[in-house]
Amino acid sequence: MSLLVFGTMAFDAIETPFGKSDRIIGGAATYIALSASNFITPIKQISVVGGDFPQEELDHLTSLGVHLEGVQIKKDQKSFFWSGRYHMDMNERDTLDTQLNVLADFNPVVPDSYQDAEFVMLGNGVPALQHSVLKQMKNKPRLVVMDTMNFWMETAMSDLEALLKDVDVLLVNDSEARQLSAQFSLVRAAKEIMSMGPKYVVIKKGEHGALLFHGDQVFVAPALPLEEVFDPTGAGDTFAGGFIGHLARTKDISFENMKSAIIVGSAMASFCVEKFGTTRMREISREDILNRIQQFVDLVNFDINLV
Amino acid sequence: MSLLVFGTMAFDAIETPFGKSDRIIGGAATYIALSASNFITPIKQISVVGGDFPQEELDHLTSLGVHLEGVQIKKDQKSFFWSGRYHMDMNERDTLDTQLNVLADFNPVVPDSYQDAEFVMLGNGVPALQHSVLKQMKNKPRLVVMDTMNFWMETAMSDLEALLKDVDVLLVNDSEARQLSAQFSLVRAAKEIMSMGPKYVVIKKGEHGALLFHGDQVFVAPALPLEEVFDPTGAGDTFAGGFIGHLARTKDISFENMKSAIIVGSAMASFCVEKFGTTRMREISREDILNRIQQFVDLVNFDINLV
Repeated sequence: MSLLVFGTMAFDAIETPFGKSDRIIGGAATYIALSASNFITPIKQISVVGGDFPQEELDHLTSLGVHLEGVQIKKDQKSFFWSGRYHMDMNERDTLDTQLNVLADFNPVVPDSYQDAEFVMLGNGVPALQHSVLKQMKNKPRLVVMDTMNFWMETAMSDLEALLKDVDVLLVNDSEARQLSAQFSLVRAAKEIMSMGPKYVVIKKGEHGALLFHGDQVFVAPALPLEEVFDPTGAGDTFAGGFIGHLARTKDISFENMKSAIIVGSAMASFCVEKFGTTRMREISREDILNRIQQFVDLVNFDINLV
Repeated sequence: MSLLVFGTMAFDAIETPFGKSDRIIGGAATYIALSASNFITPIKQISVVGGDFPQEELDHLTSLGVHLEGVQIKKDQKSFFWSGRYHMDMNERDTLDTQLNVLADFNPVVPDSYQDAEFVMLGNGVPALQHSVLKQMKNKPRLVVMDTMNFWMETAMSDLEALLKDVDVLLVNDSEARQLSAQFSLVRAAKEIMSMGPKYVVIKKGEHGALLFHGDQVFVAPALPLEEVFDPTGAGDTFAGGFIGHLARTKDISFENMKSAIIVGSAMASFCVEKFGTTRMREISREDILNRIQQFVDLVNFDINLV
């Protein structure tokens, strides 16, 4: 049993109302691996970095049980770089700079040693590349989860539609769900998206929690009410890592267990936003995680007497 | 044991993306009474209407167990009228017309027969009048719950601050909580508001559910994911009616039971938005209500295995 993770490993520079970071480690696959490795190893990572990506970051991931055979290192090129500024409403952000660098001509290759992966997490990225990874898998994985964003709906919609037919779970935020489905109501948006392929749709609403849809079933998960969201960068990827990490660990892909996976993902994301970049994800212990999950249980637990 | 409800009884004219109503029955106290009377009677209503308010509406309330001795009928004047238009995002609305009419020189009087009320619900309205009702109570009620809105923060803030010192629970929506507290984070907003008087703060977030704060305790309630919110008018008042109705029925004002009260309020509000005005509130049965509350239980219920 193992988990294949595909996505970017990159540098970010972030501004929020609370502060500003230098060039720090980021990327969807970095956050996913840091989160999921708390639940399942090995993680079989597929990504690409430049010669500027620190060896100690790679070593740190290895120490967590992340295999890097599928991570291409292009020594004479630079890593992907993204810079952005968040508003007071952290659901809003402006991209200040995007430098594709190594991503410009990236062709992911799935190593033979990754072929046994039963769980696949496709982090946000070019839909054709996400699909390429999936097509290289010789055996159909038990569960394929993917993330995407509005940019791909605007620039690569037909590739995205083809990919959606081959995935089991789509993770999107509320505005992305509305854009993808052309429906304002999130209930209708989820139904429309399920008709496009995924049997499960998770709609992330930031501070308002997340919704899980499957057929006519719905589950609502809260977000932890926080005094301060310091930096939301990577929160969605960290959620994805906790979600698929829990599913891969328990080997149970029922709707009931997906509810738990959403809570685990939400708990992991609630850590991520407490400090800049990946800082908080490197500090937390198993005990911290269990305590945080218990906070979520307490947050929504009620016992109603209607007699 | 009885419940005193203070607020407007009025006419509304409503436009939503889904349709447009004629002049229909509305008003905070109308919605509160229609909702709360499913849980507790008698309800001792304090309000004012003009000669244009239909006798059959008053008779209908009486048939539900709503006492009207405290409702002044000014035969030669007109009832309060509000007209508004909702946007596709139903959290946004424009007021098209407001005619104060009977509200212009209203002085609420608490009848002697209302003095035994142990639960008091102050619907949204002029803070000085809400306070006047409270001051007329000879015995301190067990629980005073109030609703307010941003308009009063802008026009009657000192009256509102004086009133807040005398209430136990404040119900506000998220933008009102931010405005009242001058805090963006809802956790900080709730703490600030609790320092102004109320021991409990309920922040309503429409389709994103509601938060209950008390000291360091927090509870998150979902909203029912709906395909369509037909008309949100009165949803907040209907929530308030279910909330205090459940508390008055169970005579239990613990934090634990307030969680249940929030779920009951949320369930009642989820009916209200299904049709224009008070239409849906007149149709629902006790069985409908119990089924809807069970839907809320199922919506958030999860069983997590962390071993």
